[in-house]
Amino acid sequence: MGDEIKQVVIMRTDLKMGRGKMAAQAGHAFVMGAERVRLTHPDWHADWWDGGQKKIVLKVSGLGSLRGLKMDVIRAGLPYAEVSDAGHTQLEPGTVTCMSVGPAPENAVDRVTGGLPLL
Amino acid sequence: MGDEIKQVVIMRTDLKMGRGKMAAQAGHAFVMGAERVRLTHPDWHADWWDGGQKKIVLKVSGLGSLRGLKMDVIRAGLPYAEVSDAGHTQLEPGTVTCMSVGPAPENAVDRVTGGLPLL
Repeated sequence: MGDEIKQVVIMRTDLKMGRGKMAAQAGHAFVMGAERVRLTHPDWHADWWDGGQKKIVLKVSGLGSLRGLKMDVIRAGLPYAEVSDAGHTQLEPGTVTCMSVGPAPENAVDRVTGGLPLL
Repeated sequence: MGDEIKQVVIMRTDLKMGRGKMAAQAGHAFVMGAERVRLTHPDWHADWWDGGQKKIVLKVSGLGSLRGLKMDVIRAGLPYAEVSDAGHTQLEPGTVTCMSVGPAPENAVDRVTGGLPLL
């Protein structure tokens, strides 16, 4: 289990986003994060792809928590992708809605995100 | 607008999925669909990527509607990816949860999915 490769998205729940908007924003984070790791860690990407592309979506209550988490992710040296909404619908342009961590080894991801609840 | 490249995910709403589960399933569809189009229609993929990766999530009420839609997508010659849940949580293994259409030209996508409501 510990060697599995996993991708996590952490979603803000303090914005006026319905479930469809959240799913689309998570999609941005999943796609951009996976594309980065495909280029920077092709071995992780291949293991993740062949192993069923494990994905999970967690939540934070606001921008402060997301920024704090991002600091921890950077300190841990994990790949991430932050999503800013274009603002065509529902949100102000440039609003940070969520971020991805990984795909990366599960142990390392959990060390940073393990305390967060499921969305 | 009509020449924009767009990716759509169509989600079943008749399964016992919370918003986090839906977001993860949509993530599978977005990532697999984008990866296919990167290989089969690199020009569409590049336009979509550079144009901000337009994404939207729509809904259907059940498996029958999703299967009917898939037939129409195939007839229209559009790229798609269907997601089956591994069944680790919440659902029976192999349950089809959602599908992606595109990234592909917006006019062609809308001709098939334009009547569906937002998730």
